[in-house]
Amino acid sequence: MALNKHPQCKVYVDGQPFRFLTPHMGQPEAIPVLEIGYEDWGDPGNPAILVCNALSQNSHVTDLQHPRDPKKSWWNTMVGPGRPIDTDRYYVICVSMLGGCGGTSGPASINPDTGKTYGLNFPVVCVDDMVRSQRILLEHLGVTGLHGVIGGSMGGYQALVWAILYPDFVESSIVVASGGCSNQWQIMTNRAQIDAIQLDANYNGGRYVAGKEPVAGLAIAREIGFCTFISPTMMEKKFAKYHNSPREPFTDADFHMQRLHDGENYLRNQAWPFGKDFDANSMLYLLQTWNHFDLAVQYGSLAKAMEPIRCKIMVIAATGDNLFPPYLSEDIVKALQVNNVRVRYELIEDDYGHDFFLIPGIIEEKIAAPLVDFLQMS
Amino acid sequence: MALNKHPQCKVYVDGQPFRFLTPHMGQPEAIPVLEIGYEDWGDPGNPAILVCNALSQNSHVTDLQHPRDPKKSWWNTMVGPGRPIDTDRYYVICVSMLGGCGGTSGPASINPDTGKTYGLNFPVVCVDDMVRSQRILLEHLGVTGLHGVIGGSMGGYQALVWAILYPDFVESSIVVASGGCSNQWQIMTNRAQIDAIQLDANYNGGRYVAGKEPVAGLAIAREIGFCTFISPTMMEKKFAKYHNSPREPFTDADFHMQRLHDGENYLRNQAWPFGKDFDANSMLYLLQTWNHFDLAVQYGSLAKAMEPIRCKIMVIAATGDNLFPPYLSEDIVKALQVNNVRVRYELIEDDYGHDFFLIPGIIEEKIAAPLVDFLQMS
Repeated sequence: MALNKHPQCKVYVDGQPFRFLTPHMGQPEAIPVLEIGYEDWGDPGNPAILVCNALSQNSHVTDLQHPRDPKKSWWNTMVGPGRPIDTDRYYVICVSMLGGCGGTSGPASINPDTGKTYGLNFPVVCVDDMVRSQRILLEHLGVTGLHGVIGGSMGGYQALVWAILYPDFVESSIVVASGGCSNQWQIMTNRAQIDAIQLDANYNGGRYVAGKEPVAGLAIAREIGFCTFISPTMMEKKFAKYHNSPREPFTDADFHMQRLHDGENYLRNQAWPFGKDFDANSMLYLLQTWNHFDLAVQYGSLAKAMEPIRCKIMVIAATGDNLFPPYLSEDIVKALQVNNVRVRYELIEDDYGHDFFLIPGIIEEKIAAPLVDFLQMS
Repeated sequence: MALNKHPQCKVYVDGQPFRFLTPHMGQPEAIPVLEIGYEDWGDPGNPAILVCNALSQNSHVTDLQHPRDPKKSWWNTMVGPGRPIDTDRYYVICVSMLGGCGGTSGPASINPDTGKTYGLNFPVVCVDDMVRSQRILLEHLGVTGLHGVIGGSMGGYQALVWAILYPDFVESSIVVASGGCSNQWQIMTNRAQIDAIQLDANYNGGRYVAGKEPVAGLAIAREIGFCTFISPTMMEKKFAKYHNSPREPFTDADFHMQRLHDGENYLRNQAWPFGKDFDANSMLYLLQTWNHFDLAVQYGSLAKAMEPIRCKIMVIAATGDNLFPPYLSEDIVKALQVNNVRVRYELIEDDYGHDFFLIPGIIEEKIAAPLVDFLQMS
C-alpha cells in the first residue's frame, strides 16, 4: 500500500474534561474539550507505530512530494514507503504535542468556556499528559497496541513515558537523542528563551492579539535554541566568516554595517520565520514541560521509574550531541539494565550535534540499519 | 611596598583626535578626545605588567579589602602583594577597554562636539584600537617597556595583539582562555545577545535615556552569556533542581508558579544586576569587536600574524572551556612555533568552563606556579 499523504485529522474528546496531572495554584486543572491533531499513514490493519514529535514539530512527519525537505515535514527520510519506518509495512500515527500549537489543545486553542484563547490559563503540561492524550487518540482509532513508539529529543521523553505508563500496550520503544531528565544547561538555555519571549513588548503577559504577536521575542528565543541544536564543531565546518565586507546601509538591526557572519545569517534565517509561524505561549509551555521533566525525581530514582517497563527499548545517542549528551542516554540504559529490560544502545559517532537524528545522510548511514533490525527483532 | 588601592585615574588625550583603524561608512572614524580610565598598583620603578580585561570587566583588577570577592574586583587572587602577579615586585597597570563603559571612551561617553553620549555614533572598535589606546596611556605614565602583558578571554586577544603590534615594547605575553579568532559558536551566541538587547523597547535604536535603559534586554543578553561561561558539566555539579515546589503567587515573570531551578536562579541573580550596571551600547560594541576579531583574516594566516613577535609567549587553556576550546589556543601555539617564538603551553585539566581563570581555587592550584615561573624566566 502506498503512502497516504493527507491533511491533519482532528478528534475532539468532549464527553468529559481532560484532567492534567500537575495542578498548580491559580491554574485550571482540566480543559473541557481535548482537541487532538494527528496524521496517519499506511494500512490501519498493519502493526502500528507511533511517532512522537519534538519541541517545534507537529504531526506532519512525512511528505512524499518533498522527501528531503525538512521544511515541508520533519522526518521524511525516516518515515515513508521503503524507508526505515516503512509505511508499506506499518500503520504510522503522529500526534502533535499537547500544549503546543500543532493542532492538539494548547495555549493558542480556544477555551470553549470563554470563546478566547487559553493563553497562560492553559493548565501546566507534563510529559505524562502528552502521552495520555495520545493514548486517547489511539483508542479512538481502534489501535489496540503499538508495535513501536519512537521519538527524538522531547519526543524521546514521550517514547520512554509510553513504555512506563502503558507496559501492556507497547512492544518496543525507541528513544533518540533524549534522556530521563532535563539537565541544567538545557534548563538554563530554555530559561533564557522564556525570558526573551516575555521581554517582547507585544507579549503583554501572554495576552497578545492577532497581528501583534511577540514575533521578535520568539525569534530571539529560537536563536538561543539554534545555538544549542548543532554542535560548535559542526558550526565551524558549516559556516564561513565575512570580513572587509561591502559597506551597506546602516540599520540598527545590522549594527555597524558589518555584514553578518554565516552563523549569524543562519540564526536569523531559521529563527525569524519561526517567530512568525509558532505560538509564543506554546513555546513557553513546552519549554517548561521540558525543564520539569525528571523521571528520577518523579519516581524516586531512574531505576525505579523503569520498573514497570516490559517492552524492549532502543536508545540512540550521538557523540557530538551537546544538548542531550550521551551520558543522559547511558543513564537510561543503566536504569533499564537494573530492571532486566531488553535494551539496545546505539552510540553514533557523529559530530553534527543534537539535530543529528533529523539529518537525511545520518539517518541513512547510521540510524536506518540498526533501527530496522530492532523493529523486526521479535 | 604595599598595594596601592586607589580609585581609577583618567587621562585625556585631546591634542589630536584618536583615529580608529576600521572605518565603516556612516560611522565616524575618530573621536576628538580619547579618555582613558586606568588603575595602577606598586612602584612605578619596578618592571611593568599590563593586565587586559575581558568583556564585562574594568580596570578594577584587584582589591586588598576583599581579596576573594569577584564582585568587588575581578582578579584579586591573581594580582596583589605576594600573589602571582606580585605588586611588591611589579608595577601593575590595568586599562578599561576602549568601547566599553569602564572609564575609557566608549558609546556611553559624552561626545564633546554634541554634548550628548555617542551611542551608536561611536566609531567601530577593533582589538588593535584597544591596544593602541593602552600604549598611549603607558607613554603618558612614562612606562618605556612591559615586562609582561596578560589577559583572559577578550583580554587574551589584547595580550596577543600587544606582542604583534609592539614587539620592541613587550618582553612577555600571557594569553589565557583565548584564541587568535572568534569561532562560530561565539559569534552566534553573541549575535543572540545583540538581538536580545535591541529587542528591548527601551533600547530605542541606541538612543535610550537615563532612568529608562534597556535593563531587561541587557539582562537577557547576559543570561545567554552565562549559559556559555561555565561548562554544562560544572552546571550539573553546581546546581540543583526544584520539583513539587511550594505554590507561590503567579507572575508572568515566574511563569507557571513552578519554582526556578538553581541554574535559572543563577542566571537571574547574575544577569539582572548586570543589566542595571552596564551600558547596553557598550555591550553591543564589545560583542562586535569580539565577533570580528580574526588574526588569520587580518594578516592572511595565523602564522603570518605572528611573524613580528619577538617576546616569549605563554598560552593557557583549560580542557573544560567550551567557549574558547583548547584548539583555539593550540592554533596559536602552532603559529608561534612556525615563527620560532619561545612559547609555553599550559593545558589545564579542569571542567569548570570558560571562567576557570577567574576562580580563586583554580588560580592557586593550577595557574599560579607555572605563571610565576614563566614571568621570572629570563
